Amino acid sequence: MSVPPLQPHTPTPDQEVSLRIGVLLFPGFQVLDVFGPLDCLNVLSRTHPLTLSLLSHTLDPVTSKVHSYPASIAQSILPTHTFSNPPPLDVLLVPGGLGTRLLDSDPITSSIAFIRSVYPSLRYLITVCTGSGLAARAGILDGRRATTNKRAFREISVWRSEVEWVAKARWVVDGNLWTSSGVSSGIDVILAWIGNVFGEAVARGVADGMEYRMVSDEGDDPFATLYGLE
Amino acid sequence: MSVPPLQPHTPTPDQEVSLRIGVLLFPGFQVLDVFGPLDCLNVLSRTHPLTLSLLSHTLDPVTSKVHSYPASIAQSILPTHTFSNPPPLDVLLVPGGLGTRLLDSDPITSSIAFIRSVYPSLRYLITVCTGSGLAARAGILDGRRATTNKRAFREISVWRSEVEWVAKARWVVDGNLWTSSGVSSGIDVILAWIGNVFGEAVARGVADGMEYRMVSDEGDDPFATLYGLE
Repeated sequence: MSVPPLQPHTPTPDQEVSLRIGVLLFPGFQVLDVFGPLDCLNVLSRTHPLTLSLLSHTLDPVTSKVHSYPASIAQSILPTHTFSNPPPLDVLLVPGGLGTRLLDSDPITSSIAFIRSVYPSLRYLITVCTGSGLAARAGILDGRRATTNKRAFREISVWRSEVEWVAKARWVVDGNLWTSSGVSSGIDVILAWIGNVFGEAVARGVADGMEYRMVSDEGDDPFATLYGLE
Repeated sequence: MSVPPLQPHTPTPDQEVSLRIGVLLFPGFQVLDVFGPLDCLNVLSRTHPLTLSLLSHTLDPVTSKVHSYPASIAQSILPTHTFSNPPPLDVLLVPGGLGTRLLDSDPITSSIAFIRSVYPSLRYLITVCTGSGLAARAGILDGRRATTNKRAFREISVWRSEVEWVAKARWVVDGNLWTSSGVSSGIDVILAWIGNVFGEAVARGVADGMEYRMVSDEGDDPFATLYGLE
């Protein structure tokens, strides 16, 4: 582990206005939940300085493998920081994945505790897929509008009845809380967030460069219908 | 480097019919070119056994950082095999990225040589973005229809005039060669390939599970128009 597979950016002195991005990791995360938004941020960072940290409960590699599919292929990410020693962060990205269901495991209980403790110091919290379930269990979505993965909507939404769960939404913004629907919706929520923070033209430039058809209407969600939520 | 960040799947004896997937890596690869298709394959592997290998010119971590943007954030992948000692492969996925332009570098010259040498033993070659430029330089696209990133189309298509370059296409299939357009089109080409190999319902299931709106028409390409290729 002498060479970290994911390298944080070291800012130069004239880039001290960089937004400091953190990504929360736990075993059984969904790969595209992380790397969809992250590659948009990679492209953004070519023109707008950012820093990146990867946080988990230990510094061990974090696998996307889920116990319910032991023969599946998977990838691992090497964190840069633990939850107990985090760098200052402006933005925390929380992915989802089947690993969120291991509610009694150390990685998930410590993920929830970290979200609860770090949220007051964040400028933005962004969740993808069932990552909003972890934020909900941290209590920070109480009384707020939020969404989650649509196939898992009924399962996740009962985790915390104090949240105003929105079934038909590609993503939902409530204050500094940006929650999105399943897996690929992470690309749409990060582009919407980039549009909000850096301007619509910047978001459009990132999307066009990646030949991605942005969903610009947060209510445009055919998967709510597909999964019988209407 | 005792713990590889990307873990290949070890098949059990009853899964010997697994398709053996390889991903080619070089410095300056585009992250979503790799992890978009790969996460579709992760999901597919929950129901259809696959193995995964990650190949590069050395076993050192391969960074997505490009020299033209030294301050940008980036991620690295640890390969499992070198080009000089590859495992048997059925499928090779070749991503693109700004690193493809370093034509005189060891990683790119050895990537092109590897594509040329391994292609005859593959069942399928799949490229994303400017990855088709590497396949073209390997000579294996001569006389075949292929596409590439649309913003870079004019630049890449002159690399090899023997290729029948198709400007307006989300992806192009010619025999066992599956080439796609820019970055996010890798998700569409892998879903089309899954549909071809495993059946449309399987591809639809992967896409729906990821809440991804499949592009099912390979000619549906607004980016050819956006970048003035019509």
